[in-house]
Amino acid sequence: MLGTILYGARDVRCEEVPEPKILKPTDAIIRLSASCICGSDLWPFRGENDTPEPKAMGHEYCGIVEAVGKAVTTVRPGQFVVGSFCLSDNTCPHCRFGFQSSCEQREFMTGAQAPLARVPLADGTLVATSELPPEDLIPSLLATSDVLGTGWYAADAARVRPGSTVVVVGDGAVGLMGVLAAKQMEAGRIIIMSRHKTRQDLALEYGATDIVAERGEAGIARIRELTANVGADSVLECVGTKESMAQALAVARPGSTIGYVGVPHGVEFDGQQLFFSQKGLMGGPAPVRRFLPHLMDLVLDRKINPGKVFDLELPLLDVAEGYRAMDERRAIKVLLRV
Amino acid sequence: MLGTILYGARDVRCEEVPEPKILKPTDAIIRLSASCICGSDLWPFRGENDTPEPKAMGHEYCGIVEAVGKAVTTVRPGQFVVGSFCLSDNTCPHCRFGFQSSCEQREFMTGAQAPLARVPLADGTLVATSELPPEDLIPSLLATSDVLGTGWYAADAARVRPGSTVVVVGDGAVGLMGVLAAKQMEAGRIIIMSRHKTRQDLALEYGATDIVAERGEAGIARIRELTANVGADSVLECVGTKESMAQALAVARPGSTIGYVGVPHGVEFDGQQLFFSQKGLMGGPAPVRRFLPHLMDLVLDRKINPGKVFDLELPLLDVAEGYRAMDERRAIKVLLRV
Repeated sequence: MLGTILYGARDVRCEEVPEPKILKPTDAIIRLSASCICGSDLWPFRGENDTPEPKAMGHEYCGIVEAVGKAVTTVRPGQFVVGSFCLSDNTCPHCRFGFQSSCEQREFMTGAQAPLARVPLADGTLVATSELPPEDLIPSLLATSDVLGTGWYAADAARVRPGSTVVVVGDGAVGLMGVLAAKQMEAGRIIIMSRHKTRQDLALEYGATDIVAERGEAGIARIRELTANVGADSVLECVGTKESMAQALAVARPGSTIGYVGVPHGVEFDGQQLFFSQKGLMGGPAPVRRFLPHLMDLVLDRKINPGKVFDLELPLLDVAEGYRAMDERRAIKVLLRV
Repeated sequence: MLGTILYGARDVRCEEVPEPKILKPTDAIIRLSASCICGSDLWPFRGENDTPEPKAMGHEYCGIVEAVGKAVTTVRPGQFVVGSFCLSDNTCPHCRFGFQSSCEQREFMTGAQAPLARVPLADGTLVATSELPPEDLIPSLLATSDVLGTGWYAADAARVRPGSTVVVVGDGAVGLMGVLAAKQMEAGRIIIMSRHKTRQDLALEYGATDIVAERGEAGIARIRELTANVGADSVLECVGTKESMAQALAVARPGSTIGYVGVPHGVEFDGQQLFFSQKGLMGGPAPVRRFLPHLMDLVLDRKINPGKVFDLELPLLDVAEGYRAMDERRAIKVLLRV
């Protein structure tokens, strides 16, 4: 079959790879209904993370179960399933605490930019629908696997409450999903920092009440103005750079929490500064599995439409163009037909 | 009158100082029922914070209102009051958000190691009792002003819940108050890291269920053992050094929050480490004013006895000996008769 392999910076290829097989009794093989490219795939693509050896890319997935290992009891061939990019047993103490992304058996999904993928820890990871979903919901169901789950976690970690004033730093796909999540959590005001018309428009559609196009000091000043010099009750940091985290810290009010879901690159916190400014922090890889049943229901009930975040669709063969389109911000998020 | 002035490292003196006066219409002057020395006073005493000019020491206080400025409406001469070490107007957006320690008008109390003290922002800061409290409750009421309020905030910030497993790092007065707070919040298990018999005993009296005398790797291993390799749901970091924060991070489970109230000295957090370990952080100077009415009620109803944390009582004239006794850990906390 075809699969996606990253060889190093700027070198991602769609090429012939072996079909995945059941390796452990807890595995499942799924036939993907669609796949996609994640913002986090851009870190190694840009060479900001090393790629010491060729890597099978893709960790967002949904599709039909093709085969299961002998120990798998909760899903069976023919069922439609979604799983988290974090593989978890969903039974260990960390899973039961709602932090499946720190599961004692945690693995990270790979190889899902392909028509077939192996899902380890299938029982703990996969959530099946009661029937096959209609085709038009596939993009939104795919989104629950990571990008929506991650935006949702950012809002959850930042303790968005009904009526909250929320600032979303980052207008990438995760940031936009953070807007959607904050809206679902009944935030009173949702301010997104965005300079791109198409992203601004989608943010407004998802529930943003204010757009701040300025960055740096000017962006901070604008948000202070919008919040009567108070700052935000909750900040969703959806980028992961030093600059974006500084922006998040500067617009968070004392006593607020910054939910940060962009993998931090070059970010450090000074203990004493953090202390006296009284900004809370909670982040990490999203425990998507905690939210997955709820998010899938919202999609199946057509209450949310996270799939609109995919603004470019490409065949798997053109995966490299997909990476480039996202890297150059020509696309918010690329859906791959596999 | 006599007052306490710090001139520099190891040089604290009780000497003749002018009596405080009403300087602003929002001030009150109180006659202290007792005063005390705070663990945080030891930072400048030890020379770990600079003392560029002589400083009037003391920020924990309770006593009888002697005089009030013209704008003060909520307290009147003759009333018994307690106030927070953070002075706040209790009306600004940060105060209303429960973070009076980040009040727009925030000042830090000084000069309370003396018989009389000026309390700015009296209306927002002071809480009066309905009648004069019995003498034996003075130490406990004094404790609510900072040390108890700070331990309480550590537990609140760390999100202690009924049934939680809590680790308290630090067996100073604040750590011991953290134990008391966690017990009041119905934690299921309260593990304190302590190597000192008298502090261990008091911790047990306040509700600790386990004592860990080991430190560093051995301490971490012991807590992992006690928590079935899971770690704590909530960690109260009540010291502020690099080592104590490392200890706190190492024993916190993924998804837990570290409430940190020791002023960080030399503490830095690596964004990526914090991210992948999924430890939450919330700290800062305690918004004692938020908790003060509740804590005073608990004392007045004799439900808690935080005053036991004072294990040495000295006349104000011997304040320097008090600093030395706390510095050398001969005393947990020193009460000053003023």
